Amino acid sequence: MKRHFDADLEDLRGRLLRMGGLCEEMIHAAVKLVVERDEAHLTAVEDWERQVNRLHLEIDDVCLKLIALHQPAAGDLRLIAAALKINSDLERVGDQAVNIAETGVFLCKEPHIKLGDIPRMVEVAAGMLKDALDSFSRGDVELAREVIRRDDEEDRLKSQTFNELVHLMQRDASAIQRGMDVILIARNLERIADHATNIAEDVIFMVLGKDIRHPAEQRASEGPTATA
Amino acid sequence: MKRHFDADLEDLRGRLLRMGGLCEEMIHAAVKLVVERDEAHLTAVEDWERQVNRLHLEIDDVCLKLIALHQPAAGDLRLIAAALKINSDLERVGDQAVNIAETGVFLCKEPHIKLGDIPRMVEVAAGMLKDALDSFSRGDVELAREVIRRDDEEDRLKSQTFNELVHLMQRDASAIQRGMDVILIARNLERIADHATNIAEDVIFMVLGKDIRHPAEQRASEGPTATA
Repeated sequence: MKRHFDADLEDLRGRLLRMGGLCEEMIHAAVKLVVERDEAHLTAVEDWERQVNRLHLEIDDVCLKLIALHQPAAGDLRLIAAALKINSDLERVGDQAVNIAETGVFLCKEPHIKLGDIPRMVEVAAGMLKDALDSFSRGDVELAREVIRRDDEEDRLKSQTFNELVHLMQRDASAIQRGMDVILIARNLERIADHATNIAEDVIFMVLGKDIRHPAEQRASEGPTATA
Repeated sequence: MKRHFDADLEDLRGRLLRMGGLCEEMIHAAVKLVVERDEAHLTAVEDWERQVNRLHLEIDDVCLKLIALHQPAAGDLRLIAAALKINSDLERVGDQAVNIAETGVFLCKEPHIKLGDIPRMVEVAAGMLKDALDSFSRGDVELAREVIRRDDEEDRLKSQTFNELVHLMQRDASAIQRGMDVILIARNLERIADHATNIAEDVIFMVLGKDIRHPAEQRASEGPTATA
């Protein structure tokens, strides 16, 4: 029974990593569409989205079945709880990638516009997601902490892009609609980095049984914090 | 033991509803700040955010303890799984309200600008959240379905606001920065409506054991869909 359960947990982990890999592909293809101004990438993004959505349903279902059948405690339970949350975050990463691709399709039909720090933002966001998933796969708390630290860099790049585009729009009213679109893409990438941060926080909780979110409220909280 | 468990579930439900009520207050205060151009509301929003964050930590902890101690199955397990997800969504609703208030503080210092359909968007988003929480409290599937239907209205209002502001910015370059801010507030409200939709979907799953997300993938999925 125990060995069967371990195999089930391994299978769960595998599905999440597969879903995460698809999300990474989606991000890269969506931004490629924007940068190369090539609508052809949309089909791939949409195909991957369907696979991500299917995994989203399956993983939730697997998690509840594992709890109901095996009544896990301590670390196993924290793994399943983390899986439930990471599953939600990944599905939303997929949504953000679709948004980027859809905005990109609109931009392809318009004159060229500066993309600010978008290329660097993709590198940071996709890198954070990749490392958050690696930290989950290996239970690597140090890597998870590093992912969380990198979120500030993404916020800085977003503000920079935001300012650059606003200046451009102020000089050239014909660029307003397109400038807005680039800003929205920057926001999508920032949100992907936020989801990667959430995943990293879940990994730390999963490994240490310690909730590191909301540090100020953590100290003030009446209740206990860990289910160790 | 069973009666004790029922009391614990009731307590969990109560905490979530309290958290939801705080989020509703946050939304109304944040938008009041924007509409009345009165920074004084920021303190209240920040106070409530701390309470919401505290509940966020507590509720996750309570859910894991309930699973570990009582090994729930079927409906009880679905309730706890729904609580875990609704907890995440509510915390993010709180974040969106804080974003609105912070953008509002910036807008207060600038000349007045048109707010498009923002007042109507608040009504719709806050109404959806309230009804999603009521549907959770009463296990009311019909109300949950109605919440999901209303999300289209919010999307329509957001697009309308977006277009109105872009036109304004095209006519008046001095309004670009402020126009951008109003558009970002509209996005925050749209996201609050999305979270309300997520909550309504969780309620339907909780009550019926039926996952209604991603209907296209639902049919194509290899796996079973319900843990009934």
